[in-house]
Amino acid sequence: MKKIKVSKYLAKTIEKLGVTEVFGVPGDYSFKLIEAVESSKTLNWIGSTNELNAGYSADGYARIKGAGVLITTYGVGELSCINSLAGSAAENIPILMLVGMPSTEKILKNEIIHHNLFPPDYCIFTDIFSKITAKAVMLTKSLDINKEIDECIEELKRRKSPVYIAIPQDICDVEIDDNPSDINIFSNEKNLIKAADEIIKALNSSQNPIAITGSRIRSLSAVNKLKSFLAKSSIPFCSFLMGKGIINESSDNYLGTFLGEYVDDKLYKFIKNSDCIISIGTIFSDFNLFGYDLKSDICIYENYSVVKNCSYENISMTELLDTLNKNILEHNKISFKMHKIYPKTESPRDVELTSSYLYARLEEFLESNDILINDVGISMFGIAAMTFPDELRFENQYYWASIGWATPALLGICLADKSRRAILITGEGAHQLTIQELSNIISKNLNPIIIVLNNYGYTIERTLSKDFNAKYNNITSWKYLDIPNIFGDRVFTGKATTEKELDDLLKIVKIEQTERMCYLEIFTSADDIPDFGKYAIKNLKKK
Amino acid sequence: MKKIKVSKYLAKTIEKLGVTEVFGVPGDYSFKLIEAVESSKTLNWIGSTNELNAGYSADGYARIKGAGVLITTYGVGELSCINSLAGSAAENIPILMLVGMPSTEKILKNEIIHHNLFPPDYCIFTDIFSKITAKAVMLTKSLDINKEIDECIEELKRRKSPVYIAIPQDICDVEIDDNPSDINIFSNEKNLIKAADEIIKALNSSQNPIAITGSRIRSLSAVNKLKSFLAKSSIPFCSFLMGKGIINESSDNYLGTFLGEYVDDKLYKFIKNSDCIISIGTIFSDFNLFGYDLKSDICIYENYSVVKNCSYENISMTELLDTLNKNILEHNKISFKMHKIYPKTESPRDVELTSSYLYARLEEFLESNDILINDVGISMFGIAAMTFPDELRFENQYYWASIGWATPALLGICLADKSRRAILITGEGAHQLTIQELSNIISKNLNPIIIVLNNYGYTIERTLSKDFNAKYNNITSWKYLDIPNIFGDRVFTGKATTEKELDDLLKIVKIEQTERMCYLEIFTSADDIPDFGKYAIKNLKKK
Repeated sequence: MKKIKVSKYLAKTIEKLGVTEVFGVPGDYSFKLIEAVESSKTLNWIGSTNELNAGYSADGYARIKGAGVLITTYGVGELSCINSLAGSAAENIPILMLVGMPSTEKILKNEIIHHNLFPPDYCIFTDIFSKITAKAVMLTKSLDINKEIDECIEELKRRKSPVYIAIPQDICDVEIDDNPSDINIFSNEKNLIKAADEIIKALNSSQNPIAITGSRIRSLSAVNKLKSFLAKSSIPFCSFLMGKGIINESSDNYLGTFLGEYVDDKLYKFIKNSDCIISIGTIFSDFNLFGYDLKSDICIYENYSVVKNCSYENISMTELLDTLNKNILEHNKISFKMHKIYPKTESPRDVELTSSYLYARLEEFLESNDILINDVGISMFGIAAMTFPDELRFENQYYWASIGWATPALLGICLADKSRRAILITGEGAHQLTIQELSNIISKNLNPIIIVLNNYGYTIERTLSKDFNAKYNNITSWKYLDIPNIFGDRVFTGKATTEKELDDLLKIVKIEQTERMCYLEIFTSADDIPDFGKYAIKNLKKK
Repeated sequence: MKKIKVSKYLAKTIEKLGVTEVFGVPGDYSFKLIEAVESSKTLNWIGSTNELNAGYSADGYARIKGAGVLITTYGVGELSCINSLAGSAAENIPILMLVGMPSTEKILKNEIIHHNLFPPDYCIFTDIFSKITAKAVMLTKSLDINKEIDECIEELKRRKSPVYIAIPQDICDVEIDDNPSDINIFSNEKNLIKAADEIIKALNSSQNPIAITGSRIRSLSAVNKLKSFLAKSSIPFCSFLMGKGIINESSDNYLGTFLGEYVDDKLYKFIKNSDCIISIGTIFSDFNLFGYDLKSDICIYENYSVVKNCSYENISMTELLDTLNKNILEHNKISFKMHKIYPKTESPRDVELTSSYLYARLEEFLESNDILINDVGISMFGIAAMTFPDELRFENQYYWASIGWATPALLGICLADKSRRAILITGEGAHQLTIQELSNIISKNLNPIIIVLNNYGYTIERTLSKDFNAKYNNITSWKYLDIPNIFGDRVFTGKATTEKELDDLLKIVKIEQTERMCYLEIFTSADDIPDFGKYAIKNLKKK
């Protein structure tokens, strides 16, 4: 068999994942890995401004491309981005993390080398990462390295989860069989048939089934199968906030985003009283339920399903939906129709901007095919009440909810799909955590629209604190519009404090964005909370 | 017994540590902890720009004050700063980390709440932190909470290491005994006497003992005892780079910083040929040894010592030195005298700045009582060859070596001691990782001098890479001097590209610094490496 160095085998493995951009920060023990990336014809190394940002960027990238890759040095590098990797695990984003380590010889001698604990412990990092990844392995000469790497990729694909490989420097140069195969994941046939049977049985005997769609439907094929399923079955469905827009909001039988009783208490009762709720790719978390209680009879996840408390392992969502589509009966169509929440904006006034105008106007700004990215914060409630144009892609991290995620994730998303307009909405608090990644967005000549909502502090935290004005929720005030200039010259900047200014600004941005990045600072007062936010937070606090 | 809420007990515990500034980022589950801090008369909450920065600041603070405190929310918050905590563990910096969690009820129901993995796992974070801390505990009602908290503080003090306490929201309000005691750590008397005996025996029978001092001598009392020990015994000593300046470099019998054979091969042989090397607070790591091989016969650490391969646990460095001082005999004085490496600078020329002028001039700029902070990078080699004025305090993180540490650590150091002039020397690469913490340094009206060495990339990484010009070691170029203005107006900025400019600039800074922060961008070429750096890296690569 032809032989290949481990580092090259890993580069080939990355290529096979369909990834073209690899994120990370160079470190003395990861050079050989980065060099293998750089010597590949199709891979590009993206040097991030820090490791956590690199992890967030890989996460954003993977949401669009199906997988992301992250390379760091051991100890300091890997621990700096463990939060992003845990977030990817929590939200089922497949990330291949590669960590460069000192040579086997040094490890075996337990040499005292920088980036280590004292006394040194070369196994502890793999051990820590094993807690939050689908598989974590440190490669050694005594392992079947081909098998270990391939198994990691298999786990990544099967579980749509991060995996971790630590590679001692010398192992990069070990020659192994050059046979990286395409790893395809197939369902357990028996479980698949049984689960599909049970689901069909449950749905067919249901008087008023309801479907709920969530964010964990990521592959295009799963989305298409789900569209067919919803169309064929005529089952009315709503979307959780996480997953909003995955199925076009103009679809027949769409009940809207689940917002509890906010829009219509009859709608909530209709859902709540269903005798069979089938959820697809959902997380029944607080930021999807907003204090309401909802339980699913059937949960379909990426690689397993739960039907009436019975779990069926190793069945892929796509294959299960395909099987269901062959057998599902058409249900009676229902007459509920989705409400549009924000009214059409009137001619903008010369008055202080509030969220009621802001989100209505932003809704009108959105276009089909846009990618909308939102950092967790008060704006999530403004967005929750929007109606999206068809084929808009909405990315958020509302479950892991790590503020600061969105700015570096935007970099990853823009690199993963340069053809679509990307719009980031972030609070200024979240933005501060990871601000330096603007540097890469600007230097890579990407053209997103970045909307920084400046409301003078962590507003979402204010609403959750005992004292709304607690000092600790203040944020140091920055001159945001001067920031892009630090990193480059080709950025349009603008701000808005009134309805009129916002309206004018968005009209300009629509044109400017085709040529360059647009960076906007939008002011609302510290106590301005989107209407749905007031409602949802009250409910959440009651719980 | 008088009762007190757990959150208040924790605030009292923090006060008793001698800490007045508490670092962190507010999060929905840590409000009660922060509120307890804010309601204390002596504690100040410092809202950091992100959690990793908060961790670095607490680490810097603890280096000066003897302990640091960090508060974050669970999941996202704590994992974001695990790297800083591991660094504190590696370098023996005592940090109390408090993590706010959802309520016990939600934990017991395993509720699906944001900031968690899926399915939720409320124990996994304490488990992860137990790997890198001296003690990690999640408080529950069934535990003796007083005892758990006190034991954490005991471990922190005994091992000078980070400890971790996770506190569910409701536990903050549980009433416990109001008896936080002063926790004093005493040595194991038997071990102390035995170790001291063995050390005295070894030293007295030695013909040419040598002492090496390191960075793990932190408390003022340990430093003073060590000074007495070195003076009384007349044992010639050198310092490792980590620990340089802890004992005044003008001391009798001082051999200089250990730089291998760089200064004088006879000096190296003299040390190497010692029949009894006693090391105090040292880490025998690559960035202290520079590829040389040195072994210690006696190692004295904070809370244990190793004498001729026999370990004596639970004996404090201070008490051991005190015991030694009572019995140590005076050795023959030796004639080796420390070399000053950098020549006195000549009148500065109008030529491109190189490291040979830069570090010689910076050496002259340093004053007694300054605190010098350095981020890991090529500048460490420039600093290694300096001679420090007496009573200069030098802080670095060369063992854990997490680039980006120094900027937020500077914030902590400045807050811990506002009376001393603080000077940060950082590479621009490292600076980018944690740039946003400048915001706090500026808004808190601190006046450090920040020297950003712009050498167009990760120069230290270049020297370690196969290809010196490898693209991945480039860094996006920023307009550094425009950065402080983003955060506030009271900053002096200046740059230097020539010897003359540097000389002029430092003269101005000397005056400006008394009024405001000074932020300097100093340019050297990408291939400019301090002379000792060239030597040391060659040696390190051979290994």
